[in-house]
Amino acid sequence: MAARGPLSGITVVDLSRILAGPYCTFLMAELGARVIKIEPPGKGDDAREYGPFVAGKSTYFMSINRGKESIALDLKSEADRRIFEALLEKADVIVENFRPGTMEKLGYGWETLHERYPRLIYAAASGFGHTGPLSREPAYDMVVQGLGGMMSITGEPGGAPVRVGMSIGDIGAGLYTMIGVEAALLHRERTGEATKVDIAMFDCQLALLENAIMRYTVTGQIPGPLGARHPSITPFEAFPTADGHLIVACGNDALYQKACQAMGRPDLADNPLFKTNDLRNRNNEALFAEFAKELRKAPRSHWIEVFGKAGVPCGPINNVAQALENPQVPVRNMLIETEDPKAGKIRLAGNPIKLTAFEDPKTRPPAPDLDADRAKILKELGL
Amino acid sequence: MAARGPLSGITVVDLSRILAGPYCTFLMAELGARVIKIEPPGKGDDAREYGPFVAGKSTYFMSINRGKESIALDLKSEADRRIFEALLEKADVIVENFRPGTMEKLGYGWETLHERYPRLIYAAASGFGHTGPLSREPAYDMVVQGLGGMMSITGEPGGAPVRVGMSIGDIGAGLYTMIGVEAALLHRERTGEATKVDIAMFDCQLALLENAIMRYTVTGQIPGPLGARHPSITPFEAFPTADGHLIVACGNDALYQKACQAMGRPDLADNPLFKTNDLRNRNNEALFAEFAKELRKAPRSHWIEVFGKAGVPCGPINNVAQALENPQVPVRNMLIETEDPKAGKIRLAGNPIKLTAFEDPKTRPPAPDLDADRAKILKELGL
Repeated sequence: MAARGPLSGITVVDLSRILAGPYCTFLMAELGARVIKIEPPGKGDDAREYGPFVAGKSTYFMSINRGKESIALDLKSEADRRIFEALLEKADVIVENFRPGTMEKLGYGWETLHERYPRLIYAAASGFGHTGPLSREPAYDMVVQGLGGMMSITGEPGGAPVRVGMSIGDIGAGLYTMIGVEAALLHRERTGEATKVDIAMFDCQLALLENAIMRYTVTGQIPGPLGARHPSITPFEAFPTADGHLIVACGNDALYQKACQAMGRPDLADNPLFKTNDLRNRNNEALFAEFAKELRKAPRSHWIEVFGKAGVPCGPINNVAQALENPQVPVRNMLIETEDPKAGKIRLAGNPIKLTAFEDPKTRPPAPDLDADRAKILKELGL
Repeated sequence: MAARGPLSGITVVDLSRILAGPYCTFLMAELGARVIKIEPPGKGDDAREYGPFVAGKSTYFMSINRGKESIALDLKSEADRRIFEALLEKADVIVENFRPGTMEKLGYGWETLHERYPRLIYAAASGFGHTGPLSREPAYDMVVQGLGGMMSITGEPGGAPVRVGMSIGDIGAGLYTMIGVEAALLHRERTGEATKVDIAMFDCQLALLENAIMRYTVTGQIPGPLGARHPSITPFEAFPTADGHLIVACGNDALYQKACQAMGRPDLADNPLFKTNDLRNRNNEALFAEFAKELRKAPRSHWIEVFGKAGVPCGPINNVAQALENPQVPVRNMLIETEDPKAGKIRLAGNPIKLTAFEDPKTRPPAPDLDADRAKILKELGL
């Protein structure tokens, strides 16, 4: 197995800040690319000021910038522009998540770069994309979670507004940007042609809603929040037990029948109200009541055992600590360690992209201090 | 601009069902790959039974299987195995999301396939991955949303359990699988070596939690649901106005100061309790009260105008219908059309991966009926 990943040999010039762009370049670094983070002199990436802090350093920043290099450049200064351009000569990909127009003002818009560096792939992750009337509007994660409809289908019916607990606006855009960059790399490998990847956080919210958009365009009904229930599969939700909630997910008729048998309620399997998924979906209140009545009779652990034996997918609602106690976590190396020179050892989420041809080490290099790699980079560039 | 995408010429044999695997192969089809869906004879993919239905056909299925081909094969029948193996001879990638062990039972495990088809990339998306003690446990979206901690940080503090409104368990895994497959294609393009991509839905939940995992490992505090508030940036949440909620997202000190000025409360910008993001985060209740007091004085549209002029990211909480009315949607082609022979025209979420070198047509081919492409495929294979 190779120590580096499938993107080894790829150099990324990374102008991105905070989360959406950095999450894309984080994945690139995890897969073996060299990521050179260009930060503004002084404070660097805004995310360096997001807590929690250890020894004065942002662990928010550490988590998604591990394994990258940093050089501070003022792209309005002539001397720093020469360094930046020397980096672009060697780069395969540039990633930025400025407001659209910013790169053009700096003289580094796609058209200019494409002419000067014809093999350079340009990836932009912005709030609304590089086209359209709202293109230049600012956006952050929660703004697009709200605008894009994600918050409208998350939460309790009639309840207060609820955000998806992780930053789906940014990380969603980071994932699609990564897919676009890899597709562009593959295209360049096969044809020599470089392309621009133009990702909008707002577009990504719509793409992630997928099923909710289809339900609206097909039925005309506006999807609302459903608490802990799936909109089109039943039973597929959290039920009360004697001592806590249990998620039961019956994705087909066979699993539903197994669940009824396992609960000791074969009559439910035969009930004409619940024969097909479509019927169960339409009669979900009645079905919920029947399941809840049975499941309340015993503690969650009992039902996990009973359903587990029957092959019915089910499980508890874990908190983060409980999730990390899962015996899969060490085997799958989903909690890696990085050692920061000041903050010491920090444990972070691992890389879920497991490739048999490559190692998945238990440790990762730390995130760089601002401008930490300047001397090395300048020497390499002969500047 | 080319009509097909960067993956044109790539052939995918797709054994996957329901959502996680099909979402990956959906992205592959959107980017130009040929996706041949292998379905069990009779009912085909379980998702064909998920509503809503139009003319008896599942629009759930149509949404993520558009542009694919279908052939029904019984992988336990000798005749069908010959067809399947002839397909594998021509394929670049096989994607499956069975319970681990299923492919081995069929005689098509990675080791066997890799020996017979050394250039074939093998991608598996399963609940818990192909290693570890829980490997063979069944899982569906909500089960991993619950097990992986996602539901524990989504919802109102002290409220009922809440699922992320879209299927983050499946679609998250589909996105990481796609990233793994593209990385494997790039690696094969450069070295000739094929690899196995082993994605666990559970791992992907941990990867998506990222920041929440770091907060727990660093502080020892278990992250809980925060309603509509960001855990480490303040103000970054939904506030009441005179007529509805408004999301205000100040990702740095400058934006916070602009927001205070725009509200006519420059005193808040200078208040030592709120000087830095870290302080604002610690004193978020006091800050929330101040902002809410001001924002309640006028309707949301007023504040969107005022903050908009000041460059402060903000926005409403749109439902899906409102989200689709955004003027970016047509310009960005985020609502495409497909025409099913029976169900007619259906509008679906577009592809958010915009690449300048390729067209992004306003229509897409429909999803296939079960076994619709058998004759064509057999003819191509000379069978």
